[in-house]
Amino acid sequence: MSDVLDATVDVLAHGGYAKLSFDEVAAKAGVSRTTVYRRWATKHDLVRAALLRLCEACASAVPDTGTLRGDLLAFIRTRFVEDRRERERSAGLLRALMAEFEDQELLALARLIRGQMQQPIISAVERAVARGELPAGTDPGLVMDPIFAPLHFRIAVFGEEPDLGYAERLVDVVLAGARSGAGSRGPRGR
Amino acid sequence: MSDVLDATVDVLAHGGYAKLSFDEVAAKAGVSRTTVYRRWATKHDLVRAALLRLCEACASAVPDTGTLRGDLLAFIRTRFVEDRRERERSAGLLRALMAEFEDQELLALARLIRGQMQQPIISAVERAVARGELPAGTDPGLVMDPIFAPLHFRIAVFGEEPDLGYAERLVDVVLAGARSGAGSRGPRGR
Repeated sequence: MSDVLDATVDVLAHGGYAKLSFDEVAAKAGVSRTTVYRRWATKHDLVRAALLRLCEACASAVPDTGTLRGDLLAFIRTRFVEDRRERERSAGLLRALMAEFEDQELLALARLIRGQMQQPIISAVERAVARGELPAGTDPGLVMDPIFAPLHFRIAVFGEEPDLGYAERLVDVVLAGARSGAGSRGPRGR
Repeated sequence: MSDVLDATVDVLAHGGYAKLSFDEVAAKAGVSRTTVYRRWATKHDLVRAALLRLCEACASAVPDTGTLRGDLLAFIRTRFVEDRRERERSAGLLRALMAEFEDQELLALARLIRGQMQQPIISAVERAVARGELPAGTDPGLVMDPIFAPLHFRIAVFGEEPDLGYAERLVDVVLAGARSGAGSRGPRGR
């Protein structure tokens, strides 16, 4: 079934949610429409399963290199720089989800996927705190968001090529800020 | 003509570029289709003029408060927190531009608008460098992107309410990083 889910992600990233059909996914995966439909009753179920599968694959892309800078740059190199197919799929997915902004169910799914995708990066930040690389109380979101949002923006919104030098400088400025303690949870937490 | 341009931004933010028509803009602005058409020959010309006008309005929203933190937070408060209409328009525009990602002319326009929108923030960073608040050679992009990309992301992509506390913590972590010198231009510049 992983071919069907893989095909679903491709169709979604390329053409968006509204136009996605069981027929197109089945054709792309080389199976019958019934095979797909037997397993996932609705388009939403199918897309949800496909995106959750994608998250699992993504989780393994954040290695444990011994330093947070190493972990983040290895992940960025793999997902944003070297693997063009993955990069274009992610950008397409992000645009597909944005285009259907009015669909509350899809927005809820987008938020769920965001949470899943962020988990391995949050774990990497927590390892860095445990090693004493970053102050106790560092908010993983205040390390992750200012590094990854600009990268997604440049690639998915503005169609620019990834730039590893820019990514390194982003990582360095944000980690320097976090080391100073400015990235700690505020009084109310997040 | 400013009513026509204002109406154009509303129509674009709400329904996207593909569906935008001279008729809808004219109706919204309370003028005739011919009045619009006489001034802007194509939809692209009309949208370009409307977005450039919007940039001018945006420029005045970054005040000179005497500190970069003050400038950034005043701008964020005005554009992302207090003015709901502006916030929703910006989010709608961003989604509209993303949805038409395949249109190279529109992508070029999106990049032009980004450059214009960023200019007042870049100037605020440059004032901070001139005052000695940030090290000489600080790359304004490495201060601006990690603060604003996460805010746009949360609001435009994930439909979340703005959170001034989160914005303040982002500003603080990024400015702390920039003060350390980690936000300076790399050997190759940007």
